[in-house]
Amino acid sequence: MITLSDVEAARERIRGGIYESPCVESIPLSQLTGAHVYCKLDYLQRTGSFKERGARNALLQLSPEARRRGVIAASAGNHAQGVAYHGALLGIPVTVVMPRFAALVKVTNCRQLGANVILHGADLAEARSEAEVIAARDGLVFIHPFDNEQVIAGQGTVALEVLEQTPDLQAIVVPVGGGGLLAGIGTVIKARRPDVKVIGVEPARAACLSAGLAAGHPVPITLGPTLADGLAVTQVGAHPLEILRHVADRVVTVDEAAIALAVLRLIELEKSVVEGAGAAPLAAFLAGRLDDLRGMRVVLVLCGGNIDLTMLDRVIEVGLVADGRLARFTVSISDRPGGLARLAEVIASTGASIKEIVHDRAFAGPDLSEVRVVCVVETTGGEHIEALHRALAQAQVTVVP
Amino acid sequence: MITLSDVEAARERIRGGIYESPCVESIPLSQLTGAHVYCKLDYLQRTGSFKERGARNALLQLSPEARRRGVIAASAGNHAQGVAYHGALLGIPVTVVMPRFAALVKVTNCRQLGANVILHGADLAEARSEAEVIAARDGLVFIHPFDNEQVIAGQGTVALEVLEQTPDLQAIVVPVGGGGLLAGIGTVIKARRPDVKVIGVEPARAACLSAGLAAGHPVPITLGPTLADGLAVTQVGAHPLEILRHVADRVVTVDEAAIALAVLRLIELEKSVVEGAGAAPLAAFLAGRLDDLRGMRVVLVLCGGNIDLTMLDRVIEVGLVADGRLARFTVSISDRPGGLARLAEVIASTGASIKEIVHDRAFAGPDLSEVRVVCVVETTGGEHIEALHRALAQAQVTVVP
Repeated sequence: MITLSDVEAARERIRGGIYESPCVESIPLSQLTGAHVYCKLDYLQRTGSFKERGARNALLQLSPEARRRGVIAASAGNHAQGVAYHGALLGIPVTVVMPRFAALVKVTNCRQLGANVILHGADLAEARSEAEVIAARDGLVFIHPFDNEQVIAGQGTVALEVLEQTPDLQAIVVPVGGGGLLAGIGTVIKARRPDVKVIGVEPARAACLSAGLAAGHPVPITLGPTLADGLAVTQVGAHPLEILRHVADRVVTVDEAAIALAVLRLIELEKSVVEGAGAAPLAAFLAGRLDDLRGMRVVLVLCGGNIDLTMLDRVIEVGLVADGRLARFTVSISDRPGGLARLAEVIASTGASIKEIVHDRAFAGPDLSEVRVVCVVETTGGEHIEALHRALAQAQVTVVP
Repeated sequence: MITLSDVEAARERIRGGIYESPCVESIPLSQLTGAHVYCKLDYLQRTGSFKERGARNALLQLSPEARRRGVIAASAGNHAQGVAYHGALLGIPVTVVMPRFAALVKVTNCRQLGANVILHGADLAEARSEAEVIAARDGLVFIHPFDNEQVIAGQGTVALEVLEQTPDLQAIVVPVGGGGLLAGIGTVIKARRPDVKVIGVEPARAACLSAGLAAGHPVPITLGPTLADGLAVTQVGAHPLEILRHVADRVVTVDEAAIALAVLRLIELEKSVVEGAGAAPLAAFLAGRLDDLRGMRVVLVLCGGNIDLTMLDRVIEVGLVADGRLARFTVSISDRPGGLARLAEVIASTGASIKEIVHDRAFAGPDLSEVRVVCVVETTGGEHIEALHRALAQAQVTVVP
């Protein structure tokens, strides 16, 4: 168990090496959720996540001999980048074991930061076993991403900053993977401001803290695929769980649709590129899990921004469809010259912009003078789509259900 | 002409109502550009742009009688939202004239902020004429988006903050639409730190300041379509130009490809959703226009984040292709059962993920046993695409040039 003074000591230790990210009031998110929302922008850390805090705190407490030999970490992403970056700053050799499926961009980042990257294993558990073997063989210190009290104390510095930046907060909502960030934050909040609610959020497909709290000890869970890949942990840490039994007021779960929508809303409303993990607190609001916080001053910890561009592209497209900004429909038109021109004219007259048109002759039915056309168009919203369908009906264009 | 003391007075006046956005060192952008890059995150203002500064400064200097009657503005975007938001905060009635093409989301935002929104005219010039007619008829004060000294003084507060946040800066790079922001910033910098270079950036398709400086007075230019829609101004302001003749060291232009790439890099590396206008300073680096600033401490003013989701989607897709993360190729395969299965297997064996497959029978050539297939696949980069082509060659799949 760590205490407030461990976190205060961590803050002094890492000061200067960590960016004390702003905690910004958000008018649009307040309108969206009904709470007074403040966002702690920790995705602005230099490697894009809060993980640097714990990594730097652990690195700075190594013995001179251990600093010389170096450290090893196993991670598919943010923890690896945090350890690699601060190892390089402090002149400590860093080895990172990443599973073979790890995103190439994160592998490249770690290498550019000067780490010795070893690709091993089909998943994070296999990478971690390999890291422990190498640690024992080469005498390296293994830095666990969350089940390590120095790491937990480092992550808790988020809360010390928040208490100064938003002194009148009433609740803080925090993403949960292995529980390190929530444990550090909870330790600070409950020591300084026990009236402030400490709430954890985990993906329904990776709810290892909920499982651990129910069982009374860490238990392995079966992970499902989640957009919040940074929170995909099979078993909550023993140290975090021990702390969280005392300091967490509540843990809620969110589904994938809410996480994707939260990523989208943070882009639109907060101009923030946040990965699935970092969007989990807002997702909990959007999923209706935090309705009791309406009217309260609530801090959302946006803990990381390392989302893959390909993933971001998909989130935006799904969001555009959900918002009525992209619409798809199939119509049956004349296959004679001018048929498509007439359709395009009707669509253009409503102000919609054609993004894609595909002809479908073979499945158009028995009437050879007709052809089916699948249209994808850009619209401004649900009302625009309705206006478009009215215009099609008026022009006697048959929409195929 | 305004002076430093006008901007200092503006800062005192608007203090508390404006977010003093952080100015953050960016390691990844420094690696990318070769300069020591600091980003002024003014897109984090509550309505997503710096325009609030000038709007609030002007609103606070209205006579009691004028405050009661209200103000009017013409804008397709950020200025309208800034005036609407601060008008609402200060209890001043706001009318906004927006051109009919204005993005629905911005119209909705202004209405939600309590403004009386009038849609009028095919472009901003027509909206502005209408606003002047209404101003005269109803006795409203017209707040010009940039050709107004109170507005310019408000925008200049950006520079007072930057000088405190990054005291050792050597250059500041600022987007230019009508010139208000650059004029305000230049006034402060040249009074306080004449050694710091003040550089404006405008789209090649909307270079009204370059034209005005060359002519010695504001001249109308022909606008081309630009991703930096916030900078699409037909004629530089007379007040800004008069100031900029003395305080701007240089004005550079950037093309559309550089602006799009800069928006993408800010998302990837800075986790910042910035509109085309806000990305112009980074675009100037990417286009090689600021090579002389390498090694210097340079502040990029990221002035706004109100980019349309549809536009963002396109920027990301074009960027994915440029980065080799999306690849398209056409192959000729057997039209017998199993032909596609074999192709899909070869693609999968390289780790690439198929995003789209389209069969093209009619244009496949005279050999009826062959069919052409257009494939779009997700890849990790240029090397991956080369590996994919090697695997196709090895499997004797013919790639059609």
